[in-house]
Amino acid sequence: MPEFTPESVVSALRWRYATKHFQADRKIPAETWAALEETLVLTPSSFGLQPWKFLVIENPDVRAALREKSWGQGQVTDASHLVVFATRTDVSQEDIDNWVSKLSEVQSTPAEALAPMKGMIEGFVGSMPVEARQAWNTRQVYIALGQFMTAAALMGVDTCPLEGLDPSAYDEILGLKESGYATAVACAVGYRSESDHTAARPKARFDAGQLIEKIS
Amino acid sequence: MPEFTPESVVSALRWRYATKHFQADRKIPAETWAALEETLVLTPSSFGLQPWKFLVIENPDVRAALREKSWGQGQVTDASHLVVFATRTDVSQEDIDNWVSKLSEVQSTPAEALAPMKGMIEGFVGSMPVEARQAWNTRQVYIALGQFMTAAALMGVDTCPLEGLDPSAYDEILGLKESGYATAVACAVGYRSESDHTAARPKARFDAGQLIEKIS
Repeated sequence: MPEFTPESVVSALRWRYATKHFQADRKIPAETWAALEETLVLTPSSFGLQPWKFLVIENPDVRAALREKSWGQGQVTDASHLVVFATRTDVSQEDIDNWVSKLSEVQSTPAEALAPMKGMIEGFVGSMPVEARQAWNTRQVYIALGQFMTAAALMGVDTCPLEGLDPSAYDEILGLKESGYATAVACAVGYRSESDHTAARPKARFDAGQLIEKIS
Repeated sequence: MPEFTPESVVSALRWRYATKHFQADRKIPAETWAALEETLVLTPSSFGLQPWKFLVIENPDVRAALREKSWGQGQVTDASHLVVFATRTDVSQEDIDNWVSKLSEVQSTPAEALAPMKGMIEGFVGSMPVEARQAWNTRQVYIALGQFMTAAALMGVDTCPLEGLDPSAYDEILGLKESGYATAVACAVGYRSESDHTAARPKARFDAGQLIEKIS
């Protein structure tokens, strides 16, 4: 597997910023987009349950409607791609069964060999009230968001994470109501416009000494 | 800035897996570790607030104590490094003030020019009950976890995210009680052991067609 120098990875993350203005006429090449979708699928999650759906919004009318429910932010309509990260609203017995059969199939492991692991997941999930399960799922969705933005930066693709949106209105527009999934966050993806002056602003972070504490 | 081919990024993510057994005697080189710490610092967060601390646990006795509160998982003591991702338990006026002064300083922007943005953050934060603020902060912490695991994989470094731990016991051991921070999740970091047979198992994911939905 290819390895990148630590410096090259960090420099891609320094280059990344929350893009405010995208080039509306520049599309991500199909091969790059396919790779970005694969990074979504490959996201790790607790117990491997993958409690999410990723909606890629291609329809311009739908994007215009979503923009109205996102404080009018232009990234929603102007970026090459828009992904809505939806979270499972629960973890049902069926979710667990589906996951354990997938695992059994992919790893050619008989179901009985996976029974102890399955019991552990059931015990853990059963100990949580349903609102806690959705919150847990949503945290997993943010791993996907982190992995996606990082992978995009490494490919030279810009992103803007979007929390400033009305999740319930998104659910309505996207037909997610009663689907068992709910909008958690969105991300616009594409290429920064030269007119985006925020790109040139120095990145602001607290000092490493404030954020990282060594317990030695 | 360097750009990686989409295929090379995806192949690093295919190589990644939740490492069960680390080489206990192989340490991450200092330069690589410094880069990984920088990826933590560079993590994007909502409004830029960075509601987190990253505790790097170097003390072997502390790691042994944490292992006891993590279902005995060997990764906690055996991996080269262990990071505990702690979340701010609230978003206070002081947090907002500190962030806006940092921004003002780094971007050489007078405080009054940042007042509208500050007012927006205050309004948003003020509209949330305190438990919702901690949950919001914790979701941001999972962006950091996602970015960190992705960056590590690209550098050829293995990770194991650890949710199976007792956060309250961690807080006690790490002196986080009453600190305004609380354990959210941990991550062991280092190099897979040849004896880790899970590395060879095919990666199990639901089909892209189930996880990704095009709205066209």
